[in-house]
Amino acid sequence: MGSSPLILVCNDDGVHSEGLAALAAAVQPLGDVVVVAPDRERSAVSHSLTLHRPLRVEEVGAGRHAVNGTPTDCVNLAINGILGRRPSLVLSGINKGANLGDDVTYSGTVSAAMEGTLLGVPSVAVSAVGRGSFRFDAAAAFSARLAAWVLERSLPPDTLLNVNVPAPRDGQPIRGFALTRMGRRRYGDAIVEKVDPRGKKYYWIGGEELEFVQEEGTDFHAVSQGFISVTPIHLDLTNYKSFDALKALDFAWP
Amino acid sequence: MGSSPLILVCNDDGVHSEGLAALAAAVQPLGDVVVVAPDRERSAVSHSLTLHRPLRVEEVGAGRHAVNGTPTDCVNLAINGILGRRPSLVLSGINKGANLGDDVTYSGTVSAAMEGTLLGVPSVAVSAVGRGSFRFDAAAAFSARLAAWVLERSLPPDTLLNVNVPAPRDGQPIRGFALTRMGRRRYGDAIVEKVDPRGKKYYWIGGEELEFVQEEGTDFHAVSQGFISVTPIHLDLTNYKSFDALKALDFAWP
Repeated sequence: MGSSPLILVCNDDGVHSEGLAALAAAVQPLGDVVVVAPDRERSAVSHSLTLHRPLRVEEVGAGRHAVNGTPTDCVNLAINGILGRRPSLVLSGINKGANLGDDVTYSGTVSAAMEGTLLGVPSVAVSAVGRGSFRFDAAAAFSARLAAWVLERSLPPDTLLNVNVPAPRDGQPIRGFALTRMGRRRYGDAIVEKVDPRGKKYYWIGGEELEFVQEEGTDFHAVSQGFISVTPIHLDLTNYKSFDALKALDFAWP
Repeated sequence: MGSSPLILVCNDDGVHSEGLAALAAAVQPLGDVVVVAPDRERSAVSHSLTLHRPLRVEEVGAGRHAVNGTPTDCVNLAINGILGRRPSLVLSGINKGANLGDDVTYSGTVSAAMEGTLLGVPSVAVSAVGRGSFRFDAAAAFSARLAAWVLERSLPPDTLLNVNVPAPRDGQPIRGFALTRMGRRRYGDAIVEKVDPRGKKYYWIGGEELEFVQEEGTDFHAVSQGFISVTPIHLDLTNYKSFDALKALDFAWP
């Protein structure tokens, strides 16, 4: 047992989530699986570490731990503290709902994989596109296959994989998977202005569903065509290409 | 008045923050300045839009608006709703505290500039490094100079500038500014384990101050040397360089 790879499973929907259970079960044959996940839903917390208060870890089952913190806390605490040995892989998910395009910048699911990556462990985030119903089985099966690949081959440095599995639709099967780039949302430019019973204005952002830009090669496009999207995400946001253009930024200062 | 550029100023410390006032005052000579900022501190909210509840906008002074939402909400609402005309520039800050390296991924200050960038408006985030005391005057003066440059020359597409102004130290003057890349924190690998009065364990993340990797060319390094760092940040997190390595990801599926 001790020599088989250790796989850390986390999420942002909470330790009792159905998607987490499906993911943990699917990778059981690949190694020793330990779950360290938030005690409740922490999906809007983004990539933040809790530094101002102590954290509690509660064992809620064999190899299953609940933390009263963010997904980032869970991964940090697991790798640096409670696991005892270094994991070979961090898996985050399966999230209920897409993490496509710019959503990645504030996704709790992806943030757990970012933390794993920051701490030098190959990491994969998995999300199931949909509302109400999700393809957890397909997502879990694909995750297990991908996890086996990553355990064997590792990942490029500072790079995580962000996986999105298409929503169930018309019973159509999943057509395969595609290596994709991050797409872009077309942000709702519709602000809906209303007046309350006391005559004061208030606003809704994006009266309509927020749309996305349908470009080939993007995660959005792959998923809309029935493919699982696999997007390599890195942590360095520097736009190196812009350095040339910004050489013009040379005014004297101070 | 109508033909002078419109400058939107936002932050994440809230509409009554000292840094915001310094920034808005400094750019007053450059155009029509409108402040749309959160009604209170929203620094841990990251890049999220409020979609599930309506937003209120309160005028708290001439050209100064408070929103009961995130920095991202403020910028979205301002550009798509309440400004009436399109701003030429979004400025976010001056934040009390650094937004260097990986912090960028969960900074409210930077998220406001991200939203401006997503909506196609050149955007700059400004933070003053320090604890307790900050160089707001120098940060505001530099921001005004940089804002004039951006108004004249614009910015590369999908790219914001993340500016950090060194902390006051020994009365040393600021040595200049430098175009930098995003540095990396060395994450605290020190988990401090304690036991509470009832015999239960609890944990602190990062017993010590989190350190950063001191590499030349990074924002961290520039600031530590007394330079203002200016880092071009883009919104596409795809690691294009990794596509080659990931071509090996070609197992049959399903």
